[in-house]
Amino acid sequence: MKKSITLVLLAALIAGPALAHEASNTESLIKYRQSGYAFMAWNMGRIKANVEGQYNKEEVIKAANAIQAIANSGMGALYQQGTDKGKGWEETRVKPELFTDKETVGKVATTFNTEANEMAKVAAAGDAAAVKVQLGKLGESCKGCHEKFKRKD
Amino acid sequence: MKKSITLVLLAALIAGPALAHEASNTESLIKYRQSGYAFMAWNMGRIKANVEGQYNKEEVIKAANAIQAIANSGMGALYQQGTDKGKGWEETRVKPELFTDKETVGKVATTFNTEANEMAKVAAAGDAAAVKVQLGKLGESCKGCHEKFKRKD
Repeated sequence: MKKSITLVLLAALIAGPALAHEASNTESLIKYRQSGYAFMAWNMGRIKANVEGQYNKEEVIKAANAIQAIANSGMGALYQQGTDKGKGWEETRVKPELFTDKETVGKVATTFNTEANEMAKVAAAGDAAAVKVQLGKLGESCKGCHEKFKRKD
Repeated sequence: MKKSITLVLLAALIAGPALAHEASNTESLIKYRQSGYAFMAWNMGRIKANVEGQYNKEEVIKAANAIQAIANSGMGALYQQGTDKGKGWEETRVKPELFTDKETVGKVATTFNTEANEMAKVAAAGDAAAVKVQLGKLGESCKGCHEKFKRKD
């Protein structure tokens, strides 16, 4: 009896911190990716406000650069196995398919990166009408991934 | 009596949506800024892991570029009056001084931007030892603001 309790305690000592670390790591990864998307959403909104209202070239450039750098930061690293479920800032809405359908994930990710890079280029040129067109394309590339890999709930 | 109830209802009809909008706007602004900082924290951690372990030049460049673009995105716009209190992803820990001591805010923000821009330059050059030194400077510039304007609770 005493021995088995010792074993349980030992197991807890070994597994405990590891499990705690794993849980907190999952939470962090989900939190980081939710943060990246939320920050991009803010900047999408700013560009939208600019093309629909008073156009401020510098603000659009800053917003487009932030989206571009986040898009190219390598957020794929935040989708580690085991992060298909869990809570970051809120419950993740990622679909399990994102972790299995690598071909489609690769396609939507590449499209998104291409459109984000183009957005930064178009913003730098400063033509409001062209920015509006490119914002539409970039938005479509966001939607392309959401429709396939993000739950609506 | 009937008239005063009508007036109250009318006032609620007018003020209600406006107040609801204001609350949700405050929540969004706080959420966006928390997202920006969290995403930068992820990238600070990645650079740290690189200088302490196996150094991957491309990963460090991506991380540094994300920090730089977020730092230069104009996050000051997310500190509107009325966002000194409230919940975004979580309760804001901003101190009221951030909204009044504009001179110090300007100084810490400029230092942070300078160090973030330098971090991107140093990362592009790819010298791990120099990146480690610059990461320290950048971290200090984060701390410089936190100590003055972020509650510890």
